[in-house]
Amino acid sequence: MRLRLTPRDTTFFDLLGALARRLVTGASLLAELLGADREAREELAGRLREEEHLADELAHEIMRRLNQTFVTPFDRDDIYALTSALDDCMDSMEEAADLIVLYKVDELPRRVSDQVQVLQRCAELTADAMPRLRTMGKLADYWVEVNRLENEADKLHRKLIALLFDDVTDPILLIKLKEIVDVLEDAADHFEKVANLVETIALKES
Amino acid sequence: MRLRLTPRDTTFFDLLGALARRLVTGASLLAELLGADREAREELAGRLREEEHLADELAHEIMRRLNQTFVTPFDRDDIYALTSALDDCMDSMEEAADLIVLYKVDELPRRVSDQVQVLQRCAELTADAMPRLRTMGKLADYWVEVNRLENEADKLHRKLIALLFDDVTDPILLIKLKEIVDVLEDAADHFEKVANLVETIALKES
Amino acid sequence: MRLRLTPRDTTFFDLLGALARRLVTGASLLAELLGADREAREELAGRLREEEHLADELAHEIMRRLNQTFVTPFDRDDIYALTSALDDCMDSMEEAADLIVLYKVDELPRRVSDQVQVLQRCAELTADAMPRLRTMGKLADYWVEVNRLENEADKLHRKLIALLFDDVTDPILLIKLKEIVDVLEDAADHFEKVANLVETIALKES
Repeated sequence: MRLRLTPRDTTFFDLLGALARRLVTGASLLAELLGADREAREELAGRLREEEHLADELAHEIMRRLNQTFVTPFDRDDIYALTSALDDCMDSMEEAADLIVLYKVDELPRRVSDQVQVLQRCAELTADAMPRLRTMGKLADYWVEVNRLENEADKLHRKLIALLFDDVTDPILLIKLKEIVDVLEDAADHFEKVANLVETIALKES
Repeated sequence: MRLRLTPRDTTFFDLLGALARRLVTGASLLAELLGADREAREELAGRLREEEHLADELAHEIMRRLNQTFVTPFDRDDIYALTSALDDCMDSMEEAADLIVLYKVDELPRRVSDQVQVLQRCAELTADAMPRLRTMGKLADYWVEVNRLENEADKLHRKLIALLFDDVTDPILLIKLKEIVDVLEDAADHFEKVANLVETIALKES
Repeated sequence: MRLRLTPRDTTFFDLLGALARRLVTGASLLAELLGADREAREELAGRLREEEHLADELAHEIMRRLNQTFVTPFDRDDIYALTSALDDCMDSMEEAADLIVLYKVDELPRRVSDQVQVLQRCAELTADAMPRLRTMGKLADYWVEVNRLENEADKLHRKLIALLFDDVTDPILLIKLKEIVDVLEDAADHFEKVANLVETIALKES
């Protein structure tokens, strides 16, 4: 860790932290939605959409400050990329919820919950890590663990796809389920992207 | 607006304007194609392909100048991103036309025309906005309206997807129509991306 | 070519070259896999996965050095983008191999081999070009040829898609084959992206 010789706008850390905490709420709404009936699902998807709007506003606020601040706590492009990647995590989770409702899929394969559990864990780790960007403390644990989780998500995803093609004989249902399972995998990829960006930032600062 | 203290290469604005005007032609060829018979569709898709090549050349020319010009009217990375995003709008519209011909889909759901109408409006607004980058004048109206249009496109897209899954029983036809409708939604997303980049540029310059 | 006034870390060229040579191995494993039986395919997909891990490590090493080196042989962002694009080529090839195994597709349309042959040629040209970045020598031949090959790949892809929709009546088999053929087309696009980045770098240096 270097000494900071210039005053830095600490609100970037607060805003990134707030954005990441929206992901925790988003992931837990998604988990709740899986176990709910059709009516409750619509309501939960609506709440997830609101979370996504709030996350969007936070991302927008970060971008706005980024463009108007002369000194940023770390590389401007890295904050930009990190904000985009956090936003992408939310978008994928919201999209998954949206598809489940839109496609009126009543029963999802059991392993879909495992996918969402991995996302919840990723979201929590990410929300915990964001404030540590301030001091660059103990971030390696975070990115190593998220990379491990993404690997797990990837294996789960492959198993689910194999399962769908083995078990689902209705091609239209298959199209629906495949898209949901794929979008959940995208969400895991975006969380890994966030972790990789944090690693890059930490390396530059070390 | 700041005073410009350095001479700037104005041709970037001309080239961006010319590129955006290609999108207007592209969107109107796409609209025409929807109402045409199979033979006319092939011809119109061919003309859209030519427009796409011309847009590509313009994008290439912008990139070339960008790499060889020392002073650019605004941030180099922003011109790069803007050019790419404009190019992506064209690519998606050309891809949609191409799929309609390739998949030999004779009848498209009526609401697909509404999707394309939104794209036409986005293209016109974008082409009108590009020259205003020179003075940064009245750009907020543009990006607010394109964001509103993208929201509309998004709702249309959701309705169309629900409709397809409710009405189309032939899974192969469903795969075709879903891809066309999804690619048209991608085009709307790219127009929104362009508008968001213009907003970013305007904020930096303000 | 300008005179180099500052010492530069030449290992970037070595690492980019090593990464590109992994693509040659990857493409030839993919070609071998097409002609193999189901059991041999699993083994070959496993070997391709290992290549992909090695490529990942090389990409990671390039990124690490990039963040810790003050003077880079050319623009930092360009090395970053080039590394990502090379990595994307490998990811798409590995994904294609993986899908062929996962979907248990015994027979692939003959033209899929033509797609993979184009990828092999792109990989060889790319591996040959990387060391020439050091002197910026004879790079135009490379990017012109890769652009031509991508055009060829694109036409092949369109023909294959038309063929699949004409011939395959089982929608589930169609979904599988379409995804494989689309991912191979993505790989060709990524090789073109690499070539375009090399062109950009060469233009800046000229």
